[in-house]
Amino acid sequence: MARIRLGMVGGGKDAFIGAVHRIAARLDGDFDLVAGALSSTPERARDSGAALGLDADRSYDSFEAMAEAEAARPDGIEAVSIVTPNHVHAAAAQAFLSRGIHVICDKPLTATMAQADALAQAVGSSDALFILTHNYTGYPMIRQARQMIAEGDLGPLRVVQVEYPQDWLTEAAEAAGDNKQAEWRTDPERSGLGGSIGDIGTHAHNLACFVTGQAVRMLAADLQSFVPGRRVDDNAHVMLRFAEGARGMLWCSQVAPGCENGLRLRVFGAAGGLEWAQEDPNYLWHTPFGQPKRLLTRGGAGASDAAAAVTRIPGGHPEGYLEGFATIYAGAAQAIRAAREGRRDPVLDVLPGLAEGLAGMRFIDACLRSSQADAAWVEL
Amino acid sequence: MARIRLGMVGGGKDAFIGAVHRIAARLDGDFDLVAGALSSTPERARDSGAALGLDADRSYDSFEAMAEAEAARPDGIEAVSIVTPNHVHAAAAQAFLSRGIHVICDKPLTATMAQADALAQAVGSSDALFILTHNYTGYPMIRQARQMIAEGDLGPLRVVQVEYPQDWLTEAAEAAGDNKQAEWRTDPERSGLGGSIGDIGTHAHNLACFVTGQAVRMLAADLQSFVPGRRVDDNAHVMLRFAEGARGMLWCSQVAPGCENGLRLRVFGAAGGLEWAQEDPNYLWHTPFGQPKRLLTRGGAGASDAAAAVTRIPGGHPEGYLEGFATIYAGAAQAIRAAREGRRDPVLDVLPGLAEGLAGMRFIDACLRSSQADAAWVEL
Amino acid sequence: MARIRLGMVGGGKDAFIGAVHRIAARLDGDFDLVAGALSSTPERARDSGAALGLDADRSYDSFEAMAEAEAARPDGIEAVSIVTPNHVHAAAAQAFLSRGIHVICDKPLTATMAQADALAQAVGSSDALFILTHNYTGYPMIRQARQMIAEGDLGPLRVVQVEYPQDWLTEAAEAAGDNKQAEWRTDPERSGLGGSIGDIGTHAHNLACFVTGQAVRMLAADLQSFVPGRRVDDNAHVMLRFAEGARGMLWCSQVAPGCENGLRLRVFGAAGGLEWAQEDPNYLWHTPFGQPKRLLTRGGAGASDAAAAVTRIPGGHPEGYLEGFATIYAGAAQAIRAAREGRRDPVLDVLPGLAEGLAGMRFIDACLRSSQADAAWVEL
Amino acid sequence: MARIRLGMVGGGKDAFIGAVHRIAARLDGDFDLVAGALSSTPERARDSGAALGLDADRSYDSFEAMAEAEAARPDGIEAVSIVTPNHVHAAAAQAFLSRGIHVICDKPLTATMAQADALAQAVGSSDALFILTHNYTGYPMIRQARQMIAEGDLGPLRVVQVEYPQDWLTEAAEAAGDNKQAEWRTDPERSGLGGSIGDIGTHAHNLACFVTGQAVRMLAADLQSFVPGRRVDDNAHVMLRFAEGARGMLWCSQVAPGCENGLRLRVFGAAGGLEWAQEDPNYLWHTPFGQPKRLLTRGGAGASDAAAAVTRIPGGHPEGYLEGFATIYAGAAQAIRAAREGRRDPVLDVLPGLAEGLAGMRFIDACLRSSQADAAWVEL
Repeated sequence: MARIRLGMVGGGKDAFIGAVHRIAARLDGDFDLVAGALSSTPERARDSGAALGLDADRSYDSFEAMAEAEAARPDGIEAVSIVTPNHVHAAAAQAFLSRGIHVICDKPLTATMAQADALAQAVGSSDALFILTHNYTGYPMIRQARQMIAEGDLGPLRVVQVEYPQDWLTEAAEAAGDNKQAEWRTDPERSGLGGSIGDIGTHAHNLACFVTGQAVRMLAADLQSFVPGRRVDDNAHVMLRFAEGARGMLWCSQVAPGCENGLRLRVFGAAGGLEWAQEDPNYLWHTPFGQPKRLLTRGGAGASDAAAAVTRIPGGHPEGYLEGFATIYAGAAQAIRAAREGRRDPVLDVLPGLAEGLAGMRFIDACLRSSQADAAWVEL
Repeated sequence: MARIRLGMVGGGKDAFIGAVHRIAARLDGDFDLVAGALSSTPERARDSGAALGLDADRSYDSFEAMAEAEAARPDGIEAVSIVTPNHVHAAAAQAFLSRGIHVICDKPLTATMAQADALAQAVGSSDALFILTHNYTGYPMIRQARQMIAEGDLGPLRVVQVEYPQDWLTEAAEAAGDNKQAEWRTDPERSGLGGSIGDIGTHAHNLACFVTGQAVRMLAADLQSFVPGRRVDDNAHVMLRFAEGARGMLWCSQVAPGCENGLRLRVFGAAGGLEWAQEDPNYLWHTPFGQPKRLLTRGGAGASDAAAAVTRIPGGHPEGYLEGFATIYAGAAQAIRAAREGRRDPVLDVLPGLAEGLAGMRFIDACLRSSQADAAWVEL
Repeated sequence: MARIRLGMVGGGKDAFIGAVHRIAARLDGDFDLVAGALSSTPERARDSGAALGLDADRSYDSFEAMAEAEAARPDGIEAVSIVTPNHVHAAAAQAFLSRGIHVICDKPLTATMAQADALAQAVGSSDALFILTHNYTGYPMIRQARQMIAEGDLGPLRVVQVEYPQDWLTEAAEAAGDNKQAEWRTDPERSGLGGSIGDIGTHAHNLACFVTGQAVRMLAADLQSFVPGRRVDDNAHVMLRFAEGARGMLWCSQVAPGCENGLRLRVFGAAGGLEWAQEDPNYLWHTPFGQPKRLLTRGGAGASDAAAAVTRIPGGHPEGYLEGFATIYAGAAQAIRAAREGRRDPVLDVLPGLAEGLAGMRFIDACLRSSQADAAWVEL
Repeated sequence: MARIRLGMVGGGKDAFIGAVHRIAARLDGDFDLVAGALSSTPERARDSGAALGLDADRSYDSFEAMAEAEAARPDGIEAVSIVTPNHVHAAAAQAFLSRGIHVICDKPLTATMAQADALAQAVGSSDALFILTHNYTGYPMIRQARQMIAEGDLGPLRVVQVEYPQDWLTEAAEAAGDNKQAEWRTDPERSGLGGSIGDIGTHAHNLACFVTGQAVRMLAADLQSFVPGRRVDDNAHVMLRFAEGARGMLWCSQVAPGCENGLRLRVFGAAGGLEWAQEDPNYLWHTPFGQPKRLLTRGGAGASDAAAAVTRIPGGHPEGYLEGFATIYAGAAQAIRAAREGRRDPVLDVLPGLAEGLAGMRFIDACLRSSQADAAWVEL
């Protein structure tokens, strides 16, 4: 099957997430990266393009130039990955969506609610697809957890505990002068008003909703900026009330020494519980009430349809972060190929997109509003 | 060294915690159980006394009778363990304290704040000691965690995450008619207004304060009773603000399937983190920022003075719940022996007592007040 | 029930295993330690007796004196714990057995096969009981593993992997001049010709046989003394062939840095597997072929009769090494009480005794013979 | 940089390892798969080629045809992946090596020693490279373990414990008629005389040698075929003696229920130990003697140069089996590009090749010889 021609906005040299997107796009052989506007600095953009082997005439200085030129080529890109800082997402997405080019965009949706609204409108007026890389939803055992809950294995849900601690901002890395990641992610202009809550809290929120199939209706958030001088939150404690009655807690932190990327979800219902941790993603604990605990493994006995559908290799051969990310790209490829033929592929039911992006923005916004009101309950 | 003559109130046949206290009292050879009022039902009290090998004339029908008779004997008890439902603690403790008999009492302190105040007065007017069995403080690695934080190993504290999930009340066990534990612990008259928050939330609160050396100043609590008909909370989500600036979360639950006795504490400061889990108590993770994670083991390399002082056997030979509990009794014995000689033993600095009991009552009270105000912040 | 009057041979100040036996004897309230010959050095024996609160006239200078005097007292000891270095076991046991005093003896049985034969004769000619503290058989999940295999849960057994690594003899601790444990355990006169193989290899061998219900028929052993100057083995690699067709491996080591007391057993049959690790003894993995892995917990769902019978406290409240050891003492008490009434208690079917001790000696002997023949197969 | 044109022999539809090689080749963007002889059945070969998007004229019916045709094309393949059953490796490799096409070959080297010798000769007479995919050497923490030992962090090595249990052949899967994997892997003609020892024992042997930097000099092997009717071993117990004095054990099994792909290595020296498990490959335990245990993480604090060199994403974002495999391909690409310029790239020092393949064949051969001599010691 012919590969999908892909462009990329952002993700130049030394950017963490751009390289991840490129591997994810490549891993299952669905995409060819053929064009890029890899940096907002033209020289850096060109150098990065050359390093990646792009044809010089398809390595652009800006996403606007790229959108215009590629749309005009007969062999122009069919899809684009947007991996810039958050404040660029909306404008870049609009440029491509308006030209019928599918967009795969990193999260959170945008830096501000206003940008989110604009982006929503652009998606609404385009026939092109908009996929948001809430990549943790691509892990097989997360797909299985979602399926088990949807099928009632846990009974009515009661308690949802989700957390996402990291430690990379324990010190004032943004003040060191040599850490671009830390700089833009703690800059409200580029990252949005949420710090940890936007960068990783949205992942935790998304994962909890994806797995439970329920929306957060209200929350009470206590945000902190522990590191002196930091302009955004670096730790957040949030109490959650879900639409259908479950209660929960969300903790995210970037100042928790010893925590690398500790996204972890536990869900408890009247009939059983589930537990999953991103750092050991091939395992899923299932604890039916009154029975021995069961450790389900990706590819092993007890793996469900939903897990098997996104499993590449047998049990015991660990898949990791890149495979989970690639599953989002593989889903996008499937949806794009269907779109070529005018069909809507059902994989879109499970792929995160605009709705999830907007929910994430409302989550950030609610956390900020609640925190400003001393952690009062606010609706999403 | 002559053993300390011990009596017991409550803890008759089939009571869980009474048997635990007896093993704890016996384990290090410091106490001899010689008298008891083991049940509020006289026949059951006598049967239980006989089963335990008590002399018939020292197996009493009531704690009042026991206090009076034992105080009058030259070989009367020097100390008493109170292991009844919570609403009896205050009256029983008063009966012994007023006669100069040391009291070792199960937690929480009492069922109501009024009882707590009365008990506080009784302790204040007696020369006898009052020890509260917040037994988790007896674990060696908890002693080490406390010492490490006191010595500044974590730097200024920022985040405290404590949780205590169980699953034994996932269904309406109190309605089954054959579960006395479930019955009294969900009965506000006997247990107090707090359900999970009183039974296990107080342990979590106490442990967080014991290890950090800091008090909770404010909290916001969202309590639930998930099981239909249940009269007390069976799940609690609490946000914490500590006196010296740290923030935290406390989750306790008795409806979390798959969780047996999941007390777990994580503390993060500017310089490092600690993590400990009660179900695997011989381990303590220490994660100094920017260095490899270290797994400290009880009795192993890296064990501190404070841990070594309460360690009985070498590393790799696991000590458990009963040993941690016995450490409270061993401490009590040491303090009682010093008291015989008119001395105050420094072990009292680390043993939980009235102050911790009152802090626990204020914690329960604050959780209830906050919850009634829709999880508003309240002061303790 | 009246406690059993107990004496002790060995186990004076600073001895590790003597203190363990005393706690184990005390934990369930079955024994009173009333007499002792606590050291082969009279002054040390007396000091140790005083420290333990023994009456001065029951703190003896030698086990012979103790056996004679106690046998003559109307309130003399009914049982004795022998916790000396191995070369004393046989003579001490004979002194008590010949006087009808029950013996609880530490393992291995003796230092030499000749001593073992003499001890076997003494047991044969006495009505008194002989219990060998292969304490790891007292862990509830080990009892469960044995029951599950006996009931056929694993199908015909195929593979048995057992290991017991430690690290405390990684350096020449016996040459430091201040480590009595290291000195006698590496002294062939006192410990026997086996070093690690006698001290811990016998535990591993015993556990494998206890759980599988099968005897080792042949073995091939490659023993090493890695530490220069060491007179006994400090590491052993052994291949095993069991009587009923299973094959296995046994590894024990005292020079494996990072291993504290890593006894671990895995058994695989045609229908499933089991895995247990001493350092986390409250868990037992059960892996029925083709089904999800199950984590069975002591006191939790899935616990068997055999486990429940020796479980003191609920699931999630960890029991440890001392409780497992105490279960041997509790069994001994039960057997002794039955013996008072002329009955043989069925607990003796599960308690290790002479047969297990002789099997252990044959195991050591076979390892040494095989090793001398360059790891040739030898029969036990 | 232009991608390397790659062909593939074997790996048609439903073959496990062919798909793995393709992902590995794609993941880092170094190769383009442009030709294939994907099955020994011509129709299956063509169907598989079409499914993979190969040009019809480059989807060949046999490796001979492919070697000839591709060697003649100006845009012919520069390298070929051989992922057939073992008995085809030698002939296929010869066909390409003799035409100067680089070979990346799955392990074990061949099915027989005679084939191995022939292959060795072919490698010797060709300028093309020969890489053997002992893929577990590609894991970052394995690279780190090797580096740490080479730098002396463990001191002189004493004990090496390696194991590789699986359970997929617990029953007679080869007799079911629908399991091609099980059929050829238990067929001595196609797989070689070693069953588990050839398929996974060679991986364990290779890993132990790769990490320790030492060769196995002698071994004693006890092989079993537990499943009735099975023609090759399905379980192997092996004792090892390394050239420089270390001793070890190797266990591999395909009949260990509950074990998915349990490759695990522990190495102990006079100064410390290391432990690594393939199923959780991002972790490496380092246990310096007398110090707390350290958990090193891929991408985390304590990661070494050698690990960092093959790490794609930050700590806490797990890399897995495919990334480790891809690291072999990335190394091969680096070496091939250097070869284009007539240089020998130093990555070849760490990439497994002919020498490792021959060592593996000698290991299989020695196991079989030893086993036939009732597990006598044999030299490799």
